[in-house]
Amino acid sequence: MTDETSDSDQSAESDQPAESDQPAESDQPADSDDTDTQSTPSLATDAQRNFPVPAFADLPEDLQERIAQEAEEAGFTPNVFAALAYKPSQFRAFVAFHDALVDDTPLDRIEVEMIVVAVSGVNHCLYCNVAHGALCRIYGDDPRLAEQLISNYRTADISDKRREMLDVAVKLTESPATVTSEDLDRLYEAGYSEEEVWDIGAVASFFNLSNRMATFADWRPNDEFYDLGR
Amino acid sequence: MTDETSDSDQSAESDQPAESDQPAESDQPADSDDTDTQSTPSLATDAQRNFPVPAFADLPEDLQERIAQEAEEAGFTPNVFAALAYKPSQFRAFVAFHDALVDDTPLDRIEVEMIVVAVSGVNHCLYCNVAHGALCRIYGDDPRLAEQLISNYRTADISDKRREMLDVAVKLTESPATVTSEDLDRLYEAGYSEEEVWDIGAVASFFNLSNRMATFADWRPNDEFYDLGR
Amino acid sequence: MTDETSDSDQSAESDQPAESDQPAESDQPADSDDTDTQSTPSLATDAQRNFPVPAFADLPEDLQERIAQEAEEAGFTPNVFAALAYKPSQFRAFVAFHDALVDDTPLDRIEVEMIVVAVSGVNHCLYCNVAHGALCRIYGDDPRLAEQLISNYRTADISDKRREMLDVAVKLTESPATVTSEDLDRLYEAGYSEEEVWDIGAVASFFNLSNRMATFADWRPNDEFYDLGR
Amino acid sequence: MTDETSDSDQSAESDQPAESDQPAESDQPADSDDTDTQSTPSLATDAQRNFPVPAFADLPEDLQERIAQEAEEAGFTPNVFAALAYKPSQFRAFVAFHDALVDDTPLDRIEVEMIVVAVSGVNHCLYCNVAHGALCRIYGDDPRLAEQLISNYRTADISDKRREMLDVAVKLTESPATVTSEDLDRLYEAGYSEEEVWDIGAVASFFNLSNRMATFADWRPNDEFYDLGR
Amino acid sequence: MTDETSDSDQSAESDQPAESDQPAESDQPADSDDTDTQSTPSLATDAQRNFPVPAFADLPEDLQERIAQEAEEAGFTPNVFAALAYKPSQFRAFVAFHDALVDDTPLDRIEVEMIVVAVSGVNHCLYCNVAHGALCRIYGDDPRLAEQLISNYRTADISDKRREMLDVAVKLTESPATVTSEDLDRLYEAGYSEEEVWDIGAVASFFNLSNRMATFADWRPNDEFYDLGR
Amino acid sequence: MTDETSDSDQSAESDQPAESDQPAESDQPADSDDTDTQSTPSLATDAQRNFPVPAFADLPEDLQERIAQEAEEAGFTPNVFAALAYKPSQFRAFVAFHDALVDDTPLDRIEVEMIVVAVSGVNHCLYCNVAHGALCRIYGDDPRLAEQLISNYRTADISDKRREMLDVAVKLTESPATVTSEDLDRLYEAGYSEEEVWDIGAVASFFNLSNRMATFADWRPNDEFYDLGR
Repeated sequence: MTDETSDSDQSAESDQPAESDQPAESDQPADSDDTDTQSTPSLATDAQRNFPVPAFADLPEDLQERIAQEAEEAGFTPNVFAALAYKPSQFRAFVAFHDALVDDTPLDRIEVEMIVVAVSGVNHCLYCNVAHGALCRIYGDDPRLAEQLISNYRTADISDKRREMLDVAVKLTESPATVTSEDLDRLYEAGYSEEEVWDIGAVASFFNLSNRMATFADWRPNDEFYDLGR
Repeated sequence: MTDETSDSDQSAESDQPAESDQPAESDQPADSDDTDTQSTPSLATDAQRNFPVPAFADLPEDLQERIAQEAEEAGFTPNVFAALAYKPSQFRAFVAFHDALVDDTPLDRIEVEMIVVAVSGVNHCLYCNVAHGALCRIYGDDPRLAEQLISNYRTADISDKRREMLDVAVKLTESPATVTSEDLDRLYEAGYSEEEVWDIGAVASFFNLSNRMATFADWRPNDEFYDLGR
Repeated sequence: MTDETSDSDQSAESDQPAESDQPAESDQPADSDDTDTQSTPSLATDAQRNFPVPAFADLPEDLQERIAQEAEEAGFTPNVFAALAYKPSQFRAFVAFHDALVDDTPLDRIEVEMIVVAVSGVNHCLYCNVAHGALCRIYGDDPRLAEQLISNYRTADISDKRREMLDVAVKLTESPATVTSEDLDRLYEAGYSEEEVWDIGAVASFFNLSNRMATFADWRPNDEFYDLGR
Repeated sequence: MTDETSDSDQSAESDQPAESDQPAESDQPADSDDTDTQSTPSLATDAQRNFPVPAFADLPEDLQERIAQEAEEAGFTPNVFAALAYKPSQFRAFVAFHDALVDDTPLDRIEVEMIVVAVSGVNHCLYCNVAHGALCRIYGDDPRLAEQLISNYRTADISDKRREMLDVAVKLTESPATVTSEDLDRLYEAGYSEEEVWDIGAVASFFNLSNRMATFADWRPNDEFYDLGR
Repeated sequence: MTDETSDSDQSAESDQPAESDQPAESDQPADSDDTDTQSTPSLATDAQRNFPVPAFADLPEDLQERIAQEAEEAGFTPNVFAALAYKPSQFRAFVAFHDALVDDTPLDRIEVEMIVVAVSGVNHCLYCNVAHGALCRIYGDDPRLAEQLISNYRTADISDKRREMLDVAVKLTESPATVTSEDLDRLYEAGYSEEEVWDIGAVASFFNLSNRMATFADWRPNDEFYDLGR
Repeated sequence: MTDETSDSDQSAESDQPAESDQPAESDQPADSDDTDTQSTPSLATDAQRNFPVPAFADLPEDLQERIAQEAEEAGFTPNVFAALAYKPSQFRAFVAFHDALVDDTPLDRIEVEMIVVAVSGVNHCLYCNVAHGALCRIYGDDPRLAEQLISNYRTADISDKRREMLDVAVKLTESPATVTSEDLDRLYEAGYSEEEVWDIGAVASFFNLSNRMATFADWRPNDEFYDLGR
């Protein structure tokens, strides 16, 4: 997506659509033959407050590669990677789940990010609010949507269809036992396809995991995330 | 991932107890020497109520292999696999996360299962209560522990140390925003190591995902799970 | 304790339908002329953890008779009787209320037990979940219904009519102040008679008492209850 | 149960203060020497809104007797008796339980009524707030205590010891699953005896039944209760 | 705002009913023709428990005037004035907000007081329950309405229209984030005008402030309030 | 209250930082020497979604003056003023209360704003999160503090003393009835003075009003607020 010959601001803000607006591209490994000219990413020792952060050099090679790729794309190493590096086996699974949710879904990417911040808002998760707030601004091309959704999705500037989506995602977050097929029917009536409905549930579920891991370990959002996409 | 001719570590790390440490062999009717004559696993069409279940034959090869392995070990195909087969990309990530949690942890396996059922109890998740209730009976070698923990971990027959573990796991489930380093300190004082503390948080977090996916799609526990380990 | 001339499995499982499948029968006093050959029931000293359990011999005669009858029917003394024997005046009233609810109602006995376990599930009461879980299996002739209802009545295999019944019983449990005549109307629309509607409210109310007394005193379910009816 | 020619202990144990210890005789207009000329009690047809009230003449004799006695003592028929007359079997058990709680306890009667109104306040039960508010004013000889406790027991004019009592009674009401032996220990430390601790739990439990039956059937407090004891 | 030489409209708008519309004159012992001989009001030192109460003589003149007026009208100094005198700047603003709500609204005064006690009931605020309970009895000319609304507005003797009003006021109190334009639409459908709808929201909002200040500082209702209007 | 020819203390105490302590002058495009040529402020018709916004020209003179002053200081008219202009009597009282809280307090202004956004975060109020988020960035001279506090004050970069302050402010917001003098004692132990403790309660209380009015009327934050102070 980005390439090293570019000085554009865009590339520095990445983990986001490039000019061609292809969101899945960023999941492809960065061109391996230019990594040798890349500076080695470092993991912020204060990426999480409740557990130590390992040194980049001590990580298994696959984690090093993934982190290098993310750092190159974003222009910095998102702290979630530094934090999860504490347990490589969970790092791999967490990242794989996240990739599955954003790379293999008929939902619009902005819909995924809308669910993420609405769920993270009610779970009061600092890391996810700030990091995915940035993604929500970028993918929604809207500097204000993230704060609206984190505050209260009911007063956000969104369509009725997406309001239904968030009603169900937040209900699944706050009182999972009360969700029934009637809630899924609301989504079908709003116009979502069967696979989209599944993914609305899956994205909301995954960030109920992510919010809890982030709060438990006290992951700290990188300073860059606060400003991206404004 | 595993195959039936292998004695590899892999098999010992799988979801099910390997032969050598199988706490309740009699609960697992599968007989390793008849696997070559094993019929193809079938996926129960009523494994979940809110989404269709694909045919086994239509699944990607890696899912077929994993499901065949699970079916062989358990003597039946746990419905979680049939349900998740709806989205192979999420199947892979979900199973990988689960494997990481049970295969790479200093926690006792029964501690993992105790967290699972305590969390699933407060989230009121039928599938996880019943399926992991069986695992809790098997790994704890105790026919009554699961029902105690699902009902109310505070009145279960467990050590003070594990009571502290469940206090924190349930707090992270019910009010994640209120968990702070003071809660982690309680775990250290109870005697858990740093990596154990991380894993207590991670297991609780993962089942907050799992409980929500299960309720959303209405996964049905196999009849076998209700009786295993009694 | 149970009559040694009987070899029916049924009788050993009792507080439950006798061979003729008449659920009310067990409420009739045990045949008085064979009590003299009966061994004296004993009260488990660990029937409750937060209060002492008196000796059977020290109880008032009417409590001895009732306990002897229950022990004969069930094949063991349910711990609720040992626990309540701490206060004979409350023992009598508690048992009288329970008897009124199950002996004088147009509700099916399984409906009563369904309410009990659904209510006890949301109140997280170990004793009632386990003891009435057994009754629910027996009266429902279904080994899996109790665990479904304890986990989440919304995902249990029950009719729409009974789903409405449990919606109201659980609402009365969780937020009693919000129950209004509109909730009763839902029950009438589902097909319940006026007296049935009253009794749905009364059963739910009584187990809000029972769950609290059981948790407060930490009543322990007899081991037998975990297995009955499977 | 009691009759006007009796000096038995029974009368001293009844729901209403006996002559000898009647704290606010003037609040109770009934005049004992005119009971033989007393007209038959009538049951207010609007004693409850969600169920019919039977005619006094149609009630079983034991209910007639109890109601006549209560009407004589109070000077009016408390609507709880008219309401419960809908189901005589439950009337008997309910009244028996209530009698056991107030007649056979080492708790001061005002302590019982304090628990009742604190519990009924958080359960938002109109009937119990108003009817037992009157009893709380009478037994406490304090025209303001009831409103304080119904509003918020934490800001009521009560001793530290009774504040502990109400802390536990309200916790058992609002989140029964979280009550443990540590809560009972608080009561012992505050100076309550073992039997008092049991009864604190039992009274709180019983009014969790009573509040729910009253709200479900919409029992209406008699007008007299609003003014008694002021 | 008003002074004793004035017959202005202002006095009719004050917190207390003016002579011309005083619904329960007898409850208010103040005698208008002795105001010039009125003794200086004193502020009860126990008007609040968590902060000191200043001396009347030390207050700024405008507070002295307002308090004197209130004391004259009520026949005693409501403790809210003594409590707020701790911070004159907040005293002025609080009183000005309250005056705006009751003096400039198309809502009936009894509707305002109904909202106040329903909100204060769910917030469990002693001061507001008791002080505004008195006003509710006086303005509603009903000795029982306040206790009904404080207990549970759903079982109070009120019209359907006012039931809708309180549904929204209490929802705004208990879960403000979930209130949307659909709730306002319910009020329009019930027959409220646009300005009345605004004021329903404003009154409920103001008492969410008032309840919290009162509980935080532990304002004590004057003894007089418990009896007014009965 | 302030006028442009004045250098009085008043201006330093106003809602917006005065020149001398303006932490982020560049965020405030208003230029004081062009005020006489300033165009008349206009009130955004979409300042609130659930009620109309009056025309500036139709407002009472005192509202026009205050709004002109605010518009001059901020460089735009904060929508709260346009929204409240719907009811001038409430506008005046609301603004007076707010002024009292920020102009007459020993709390640091940043402490006031920290309470505001922590309270508004748990109440999920869009307007207050965004508008006071801007003030929090400006007065705290910290572009990230507001998002941290809105997300979860427990994971924000704040001192232990202020953590105690927010613990109490949020407890007063979420469960006002449970706040007691023990909570105030925590604040004294943390080092707050008596008047500061009062003001912590008052600020939290006022924003429980403000959050509810804002959500009820659906006040919309000006676009400028999203960016100020970053």
